[in-house]
Amino acid sequence: MDYYKKSLELHEEHKGKLAIVSKVPLKTREDLSLSYTPGVAEPCKRIHKNPKDVYKYTNKGNMVAVISDGSAVLGLGNIGATASLPVMEGKAILFKEFGDVDAFPICLDTQDTEEIIKTVKLIAPSFGGINLEDISAPRCFEIEQRLINELDIPVFHDDQHGTAIVILAGMINALKITNKKLSDIKITLNGLGAAGTAVIKLLIKYGANSENILLCDSKGVIYKGRNNLSKIKNELAEITNTACHLGINNPECRTGGLVEAIKGADIFIGLSKPGLLTPDMVKSMSSEPIIFAMANPEPEIMPDLAKRAGAKIVATGRSDFPNQINNVLAFPGIFRGIFDAKITKITDDIKIIVAETIANYVVSPTCENLMPDILDRNVSKKIAEAIIQQNK
Amino acid sequence: MDYYKKSLELHEEHKGKLAIVSKVPLKTREDLSLSYTPGVAEPCKRIHKNPKDVYKYTNKGNMVAVISDGSAVLGLGNIGATASLPVMEGKAILFKEFGDVDAFPICLDTQDTEEIIKTVKLIAPSFGGINLEDISAPRCFEIEQRLINELDIPVFHDDQHGTAIVILAGMINALKITNKKLSDIKITLNGLGAAGTAVIKLLIKYGANSENILLCDSKGVIYKGRNNLSKIKNELAEITNTACHLGINNPECRTGGLVEAIKGADIFIGLSKPGLLTPDMVKSMSSEPIIFAMANPEPEIMPDLAKRAGAKIVATGRSDFPNQINNVLAFPGIFRGIFDAKITKITDDIKIIVAETIANYVVSPTCENLMPDILDRNVSKKIAEAIIQQNK
Repeated sequence: MDYYKKSLELHEEHKGKLAIVSKVPLKTREDLSLSYTPGVAEPCKRIHKNPKDVYKYTNKGNMVAVISDGSAVLGLGNIGATASLPVMEGKAILFKEFGDVDAFPICLDTQDTEEIIKTVKLIAPSFGGINLEDISAPRCFEIEQRLINELDIPVFHDDQHGTAIVILAGMINALKITNKKLSDIKITLNGLGAAGTAVIKLLIKYGANSENILLCDSKGVIYKGRNNLSKIKNELAEITNTACHLGINNPECRTGGLVEAIKGADIFIGLSKPGLLTPDMVKSMSSEPIIFAMANPEPEIMPDLAKRAGAKIVATGRSDFPNQINNVLAFPGIFRGIFDAKITKITDDIKIIVAETIANYVVSPTCENLMPDILDRNVSKKIAEAIIQQNK
Repeated sequence: MDYYKKSLELHEEHKGKLAIVSKVPLKTREDLSLSYTPGVAEPCKRIHKNPKDVYKYTNKGNMVAVISDGSAVLGLGNIGATASLPVMEGKAILFKEFGDVDAFPICLDTQDTEEIIKTVKLIAPSFGGINLEDISAPRCFEIEQRLINELDIPVFHDDQHGTAIVILAGMINALKITNKKLSDIKITLNGLGAAGTAVIKLLIKYGANSENILLCDSKGVIYKGRNNLSKIKNELAEITNTACHLGINNPECRTGGLVEAIKGADIFIGLSKPGLLTPDMVKSMSSEPIIFAMANPEPEIMPDLAKRAGAKIVATGRSDFPNQINNVLAFPGIFRGIFDAKITKITDDIKIIVAETIANYVVSPTCENLMPDILDRNVSKKIAEAIIQQNK
């Protein structure tokens, strides 16, 4: 079906996707006196006296800002703030639908790191949490870290951590099915933007052996001493592909491109570009390999092609194939949980409990049924409950 | 009745007053594919190609930012961004209820003029209009003017122009009733903050003779040469109280406080503080004087007291007396109209047509029935129609 044409029609028909509504009645003179002047003076005074009361008398505690500068939008790249608004409106209504979290899109007319940080800090009084979205690497790392440090509300870059959480969830179930251990398996990951970096960090945190991991960017395998590595890639080269630490002439040191890096891998994770993984590459992996081909909207390899080349499990971001791995399984429940538990920092422990909750939601995972249905609203509820339980 | 206690309860029960909702269905896999990925890529591409299409495919064109720094909140003064949030949420839901305009509260954690201007400009891509609220004078003047000049969406400081419009509307009807002409009457206005300054400018624009106007601030009457006048007060001293231009010893030159300035006035307009106008001052005015005592929540003089001292017409901001003059009669209809007519600058001509529309809405105004009922949703509709008609 033609999603693009129908989507245009839907957006034009409704003039966008979100609206603001009142939670209180505004029909009588008394209603106005309570919600506005003179009555509204009293909650204002209480908050002025005790700023924490803003969570009691306003919607701040349930309101997320969906912040983007439009620099890395879906598969579209750097299309700027205004053109990213349909995505941010979409994200906002998903928060509501799946987590009963209010969310509002703020598209920023700047791509300057300091200006973004400053602006988010200045508008923060209206919000209980910040969801950063579609901000390109490496700026997204500093923006997120600075905001986590400098704000007293939770800050979450969904492209990084939402993606990392749902991939870890899928991985947990893929390993259950294949009876493998995360610490033993060889992982090759392609694409070291915001998502790829966060995925690999969370996998290592959860027990993957960094010495079994090979990472590729658009120039090929990462190894210590490769020219022009960014700060974060340098850090990753320190812990992965460790044979190269003895020099690139060491026969165990892995260099070259994806075609070299994929050989013998148990798992391929792609957060890169459509079509980069060929059937021959899949055939060069270990037996019964697992493929997470997450490029949007076209994966690194189409599932049927990967299967024919011998893949045991194939997951993508697509709704028209089995094993759809989509952040919507995570972010609404995460904010529901941290709002209800009044948590201000989203730790690795929280990310892990969320991944485990999503994985365990599938009672008997199979090769064709790795993940919960993205339409199942109960996933968010279970995530929120798990976060509340963990942080009691 | 105890508005304050009941208002607290209402705010606590609902945890604030506004929520975000989806305008599109999100129940099926197809719904998600149209509103979010992959379908959403198409409206993004269209907007990237033609930025004006953001009005076609998103809610931008119906979305107002209600911006405050919390520096001059209602009768509460400088209580800061966080404590002002209940007022801004209230304003936002009034926009919706009376104008079907979506509005979102943005409370800014700064009171620096340049930072406010910069922040509003950076978040502007998400909004179709800016409503500045409760920002103290004189910063509000520069902030508004700069944003009007530097943004391509309408910017409106409601404390200034909303107040000026509803007072002009009341004045038009008060003059009808008393059969007086605006150009002939003597006006004394007390309080030269954001509202007072805008009121007097709009009255002059509409035909009041500035030589018949006396303006007071907390230090008394404004006249040319008075010490330490701000830029805007200096401008006003150039056109009012003109006898002082010949020197303060000129017997026609008016100096002193409100008690001196009110003598012989036909109309008193107060945008100042509770209780400043005494019955003796009312008695010193011309016969059958008109009193607009707009201080919130307590007026400069209570209506019954003013009536007993001889006032013919008394208007206040209060809902528990006749002649309630409240901005809610104006701002929802103004934004409804400028959004529908795709107007980017709110000119004096628009302000005047709005004031006339409000005044004319009352078919047979009387001393006790000067203004439309603030609960009457049709006022906003008529305002919007008048703006559209005027700008065809």
